[in-house]
Amino acid sequence: MTRIAVDTGDDVAPWLGTVEEVATALARTAVERDQRGGTATAERQLLRESGLLALSVPTGQGGLGADWQAVLGVVRRFARVDSSVAHLFAFHHLLLATTRLFGHDGQWQPWLKESVQRRWFWGNALNPLDKGALASPSSNGGYTFSGRKSFCSGAADSDMLVVSAFENNSRLLIGVVPTARKGITVLNDWDNMGQRQTDSGTVILDRLSVAPADLLTDPGPLSTPFACLRPMLAQLILANIYLGLGEGALAEARSFTLQSARPWIASPAASASEDLYVLGHYGDFWLALEGARALADKASAAFDDAWQRGTALTERQRGKVAVAVAAAKVATTRAGLEVANRMFEVTGARATTAALRLDRFWRNLRVHTLHDPLDYKVRELGDWALNERLPVPSFYS
Amino acid sequence: MTRIAVDTGDDVAPWLGTVEEVATALARTAVERDQRGGTATAERQLLRESGLLALSVPTGQGGLGADWQAVLGVVRRFARVDSSVAHLFAFHHLLLATTRLFGHDGQWQPWLKESVQRRWFWGNALNPLDKGALASPSSNGGYTFSGRKSFCSGAADSDMLVVSAFENNSRLLIGVVPTARKGITVLNDWDNMGQRQTDSGTVILDRLSVAPADLLTDPGPLSTPFACLRPMLAQLILANIYLGLGEGALAEARSFTLQSARPWIASPAASASEDLYVLGHYGDFWLALEGARALADKASAAFDDAWQRGTALTERQRGKVAVAVAAAKVATTRAGLEVANRMFEVTGARATTAALRLDRFWRNLRVHTLHDPLDYKVRELGDWALNERLPVPSFYS
Amino acid sequence: MTRIAVDTGDDVAPWLGTVEEVATALARTAVERDQRGGTATAERQLLRESGLLALSVPTGQGGLGADWQAVLGVVRRFARVDSSVAHLFAFHHLLLATTRLFGHDGQWQPWLKESVQRRWFWGNALNPLDKGALASPSSNGGYTFSGRKSFCSGAADSDMLVVSAFENNSRLLIGVVPTARKGITVLNDWDNMGQRQTDSGTVILDRLSVAPADLLTDPGPLSTPFACLRPMLAQLILANIYLGLGEGALAEARSFTLQSARPWIASPAASASEDLYVLGHYGDFWLALEGARALADKASAAFDDAWQRGTALTERQRGKVAVAVAAAKVATTRAGLEVANRMFEVTGARATTAALRLDRFWRNLRVHTLHDPLDYKVRELGDWALNERLPVPSFYS
Amino acid sequence: MTRIAVDTGDDVAPWLGTVEEVATALARTAVERDQRGGTATAERQLLRESGLLALSVPTGQGGLGADWQAVLGVVRRFARVDSSVAHLFAFHHLLLATTRLFGHDGQWQPWLKESVQRRWFWGNALNPLDKGALASPSSNGGYTFSGRKSFCSGAADSDMLVVSAFENNSRLLIGVVPTARKGITVLNDWDNMGQRQTDSGTVILDRLSVAPADLLTDPGPLSTPFACLRPMLAQLILANIYLGLGEGALAEARSFTLQSARPWIASPAASASEDLYVLGHYGDFWLALEGARALADKASAAFDDAWQRGTALTERQRGKVAVAVAAAKVATTRAGLEVANRMFEVTGARATTAALRLDRFWRNLRVHTLHDPLDYKVRELGDWALNERLPVPSFYS
Repeated sequence: MTRIAVDTGDDVAPWLGTVEEVATALARTAVERDQRGGTATAERQLLRESGLLALSVPTGQGGLGADWQAVLGVVRRFARVDSSVAHLFAFHHLLLATTRLFGHDGQWQPWLKESVQRRWFWGNALNPLDKGALASPSSNGGYTFSGRKSFCSGAADSDMLVVSAFENNSRLLIGVVPTARKGITVLNDWDNMGQRQTDSGTVILDRLSVAPADLLTDPGPLSTPFACLRPMLAQLILANIYLGLGEGALAEARSFTLQSARPWIASPAASASEDLYVLGHYGDFWLALEGARALADKASAAFDDAWQRGTALTERQRGKVAVAVAAAKVATTRAGLEVANRMFEVTGARATTAALRLDRFWRNLRVHTLHDPLDYKVRELGDWALNERLPVPSFYS
Repeated sequence: MTRIAVDTGDDVAPWLGTVEEVATALARTAVERDQRGGTATAERQLLRESGLLALSVPTGQGGLGADWQAVLGVVRRFARVDSSVAHLFAFHHLLLATTRLFGHDGQWQPWLKESVQRRWFWGNALNPLDKGALASPSSNGGYTFSGRKSFCSGAADSDMLVVSAFENNSRLLIGVVPTARKGITVLNDWDNMGQRQTDSGTVILDRLSVAPADLLTDPGPLSTPFACLRPMLAQLILANIYLGLGEGALAEARSFTLQSARPWIASPAASASEDLYVLGHYGDFWLALEGARALADKASAAFDDAWQRGTALTERQRGKVAVAVAAAKVATTRAGLEVANRMFEVTGARATTAALRLDRFWRNLRVHTLHDPLDYKVRELGDWALNERLPVPSFYS
Repeated sequence: MTRIAVDTGDDVAPWLGTVEEVATALARTAVERDQRGGTATAERQLLRESGLLALSVPTGQGGLGADWQAVLGVVRRFARVDSSVAHLFAFHHLLLATTRLFGHDGQWQPWLKESVQRRWFWGNALNPLDKGALASPSSNGGYTFSGRKSFCSGAADSDMLVVSAFENNSRLLIGVVPTARKGITVLNDWDNMGQRQTDSGTVILDRLSVAPADLLTDPGPLSTPFACLRPMLAQLILANIYLGLGEGALAEARSFTLQSARPWIASPAASASEDLYVLGHYGDFWLALEGARALADKASAAFDDAWQRGTALTERQRGKVAVAVAAAKVATTRAGLEVANRMFEVTGARATTAALRLDRFWRNLRVHTLHDPLDYKVRELGDWALNERLPVPSFYS
Repeated sequence: MTRIAVDTGDDVAPWLGTVEEVATALARTAVERDQRGGTATAERQLLRESGLLALSVPTGQGGLGADWQAVLGVVRRFARVDSSVAHLFAFHHLLLATTRLFGHDGQWQPWLKESVQRRWFWGNALNPLDKGALASPSSNGGYTFSGRKSFCSGAADSDMLVVSAFENNSRLLIGVVPTARKGITVLNDWDNMGQRQTDSGTVILDRLSVAPADLLTDPGPLSTPFACLRPMLAQLILANIYLGLGEGALAEARSFTLQSARPWIASPAASASEDLYVLGHYGDFWLALEGARALADKASAAFDDAWQRGTALTERQRGKVAVAVAAAKVATTRAGLEVANRMFEVTGARATTAALRLDRFWRNLRVHTLHDPLDYKVRELGDWALNERLPVPSFYS
């Protein structure tokens, strides 16, 4: 029997004020930046200066030592107002975690320490589905990476880059290198209908030298149940961004209904906020998000528990986390899309003015929820429910 | 930020074995009793003998001292196999709780103590929507109740009865009396499409004498935020029964798919349990239940927390519990009905044989989810989400 | 561009009065017979006497010469009040049609003529998925059928039987024989949660002699595009039964709401019939049925058109009918189940009394909609929409 | 019993080739113009030159004499590729129809004749919900209109304008005037998230002189059942635009799936177009649109029938048309939004590139479906289904 402790809210993290400040600053320009697209240079700088890039770094390495429930809570908070920057922020922490999960202590400890000291922002060029880059062995025991990587979120304006290539097109090699290293060109070619400031464009690798010490081969990607937590964290990040987007959409809808909406001519209600159908929609929206929140919170707690077990984590324990994460992923996808798609039914036509760009919640969700297909996540849940088979480890499960 | 503790499962309640024994016994005859209907005399006796009627009674009164999360977990467990008996069991505990919430220490403490000692089964004749019974003042300061009460679940074969009547058709008076007292006739007139053994029929009151000491007037119904927890508990019971029914339906469907279903002639799958559409449905079913479980668990935890605050409970605290309970109620209703309605799509036509009576899950849910209308529960959630209005206390909120 | 003619309603079929009389008689006892199950002997006799068993028979063979739109309209009408008898009635006509589609003029013409004259009721023992019966060649060029056939709707109390067996377990042979012929035993073993009077039980074949003239081998099952209309008609019958059940459920719900429902205590409406949520549900129900009706009507019209083309019907023309029929099948399944499942939300708890047996609409739909799985029908529609592939002919498409 | 005639497709309208040419031209630049917004000057000119602005004009007035089923078919066709221009085109015809429905023969006949001769494009400044313009009586028996009108689709670049104002804030007066008349200023202030080239901005009226002959007061707005067809036509136009948008979204999705989508790594399918889940979605999309098409076609046919009855149209006949139109409106709204929202689930992430602007279908639908709230349309259907009340005439029913 699962038992839930009621949050007393007694201990408030010291960095929560900073989180709110950053969120407020992001909110101020989010509409304008959604229109503009491109790199969120000023906002990335704000994150560097906030110290929050050290949020997930253990105190031993000079970080704030927050657990993942806390980090994901911040991701969710940012996503309410700016899901692009939330994504950059979250993936930075995912990439830090990647060094720990796929590398050895002699790698991740100094990297994280230096990352805190120099306020590095980490970027992504890892896309394991993209076979466009090849790794050729070098004489020094390292490799040379050449080719193209797509969907490289946060590579632009990054200090460190996690980059991958396939050896003879089969084994995936992952390296950690300074973005400024010779052989790396970050293209400015991301222009999408949503998530417009994630810079999820192309990175060109031209004989990039990756030294043995740069390679995450000990224990290597997905090599142990603990290493398999990496995709779990990636999926949890997505879930929390979707949830934040849904919450943000609800908040904007609410604000519009209360301030600007008028009851329909056939409504018996004195105001839109008393209209029975409007209230029904808000009830549905809120419940969808509340259910998704409950599952996301459970999954985060399970993830933290698994994280703390470290290399002692068993396959079965990882599998149970994978089920919880998949549930959170599907529920937040559905709830977020539902609210973002239907929020206009409680605001009316005037909320569609381009000035408000309220469609950005749907556009951001629609783009981001395609990261990997929902149908096969649901299938995983079904395989668990029916056949008691836990999700098979992959970069998406 | 809500934080969730992962259940370590270390401490197992000593009565859990008994729960499983009772559940197994109920399951053995549930199909046959669904067909028969009528009073579940043997099963009621089994509950008396199991000692579980003392589950919610504080240890101070000789009970097992389980908290409500635990009690509701047992209700859910029973509902998986027999939602009628689960209802009788749950309402017994609700009625015990009612004496505490609406009465004073000098009432509920001896009642509960005696209830444990004599293994009383409590029955319900309280229906606050039914104005069919009138309370006339007696010379002794008490009242005489006369009239009819409908939907009196568990009155048949009960030892104690919680009975209500309206004074001059306005003030609701609630009395606690032995069912055997003169003036009480329990009709055997419950014959419904579902919940067939809840005996939710009619009780006739014919000049029933209710003494001052029998009346729950100090503090009286819904008189304080703490007293207002009574409908919260009633709604939580419903939510857990709906959830148990959904879980039971899923378990039966799973068993049938694994043992008896065949892949459709157009399916590329080697077995029904590998069919992509079948897996998709199981994923949807499981996720709906998992989300509902998360909300039900949160609501139960919130309820226990409020219960422990006792008369210190504030209106706002009660309101927050009411929101959590409403969310659980709506989510479990929808999830349960979804699974019970669609379970046949993963079993195929042969699962509809009358011998299995697999339609009982839907019939039980359909009947029981009409206790109070879902639309107005959703409206409450909407009023909270949009207008930040907490549910107004009533016998249904 | 499709163009639709508005029905002027000028020509009213002379047999419509009879249809209404039969429907009224069926309605009178439907609730009681749903409880009882078993063979609807009196109702089958009523159909024999009504002359409506000749409805689809061409005037050339002494029948009423109605086209299929008309016949299916009657099926739908009967299904509103009694979907079991509607099914028996419809399958009788399907079996008559089967002789025409799979046999030659020298077979179906005398059979239909005699069927009208002797008021034969035809029964079904054809189930092509059931490999339980074997056909062994006889010395006379005919066959001997032995084994069991399941789901033999309407075999009980039938005069003629369409029966199938597999030759060496591969080629399907279909024979037309008097039900009274030696070697046929119709078991009375149908007891299901719904469609309780369709007698869809087992037929035992014990060395049943099937003469060459009894066999539908010229042109034989599914042998030509025209012969492939047989499953189209079967599916259209199902669609119209589902639709009739949905319409019947709506009618019963409406009657209850108008006569007996009360507005919820939190509703601002003066009566249940003015409650905004209640009206919203009725709008949804009606619209679901109206859309399904439109598709069912289109499919019936397409079917009649194809029927009239006879053996000139091309594969592509049959395929287009198959798409229309699949659309009607899926839409009516969903609409029917939606209304039958949710009708109680507009009636309230008192409508669940066993006396009304309002659950029969859901039970009947739930059982009958499992005839073949919806998922693969939707897949067929998707294959058409995406790949422009017409449904592959089978006994289900 | 409704009977449907199967379309033989024999007679093809002579102007269909022109329609296809215009549609092709619109499609060529639709993506770029969706980005740009503003007035579609070249496309409006193309429509003028095509002769299709005379499509609905009776041959007696020199027009093409198409009935409304045909006109609405063209609206739907245009909306597949460009729902903004489809809207301008459709409202032009609505405004022509308005003169006939609200005015007398001496008005609409010469207006339509001249409209054909001079290739006038009509614009809208009628919004009956906007009380921002006042009509003051002039000495000549006419009026002076002053104030602002919002949502004036197609006023920009129009030749004639249908403009309204309220007399003493109560009686709605509608005038027909040349857009060039002194006192009319069309603002270029429409910038919305969708329907970006409908120019649905503001018209400023500054002492606009409206002569008695300009006023549609005989018989006047909504004055007779026949006059009440005006909102029916407006709603049918919306329904057909929604449907066209849904069809266009499906066509784009299909094209992308067939050409560019790849099966997911966990899919057993060899190509995305064979993936069972992808096929399932296409089946759902297609069926939703097919059902909406059937209802839209039925409603158009009913409308044409009512139109032909002219002033003989009874209240009840108008009411039945209103029910059919409401059904079409709700069904097309839901189907269109469903497809436009979920089309990305069958294309994958690469379809979200800004270059394709595939989000325009959702944005256009989302904006346009807020014209009047769906909830109250559903309520109308519910009132019909439950209470047999036909929709009360208004500018929206």
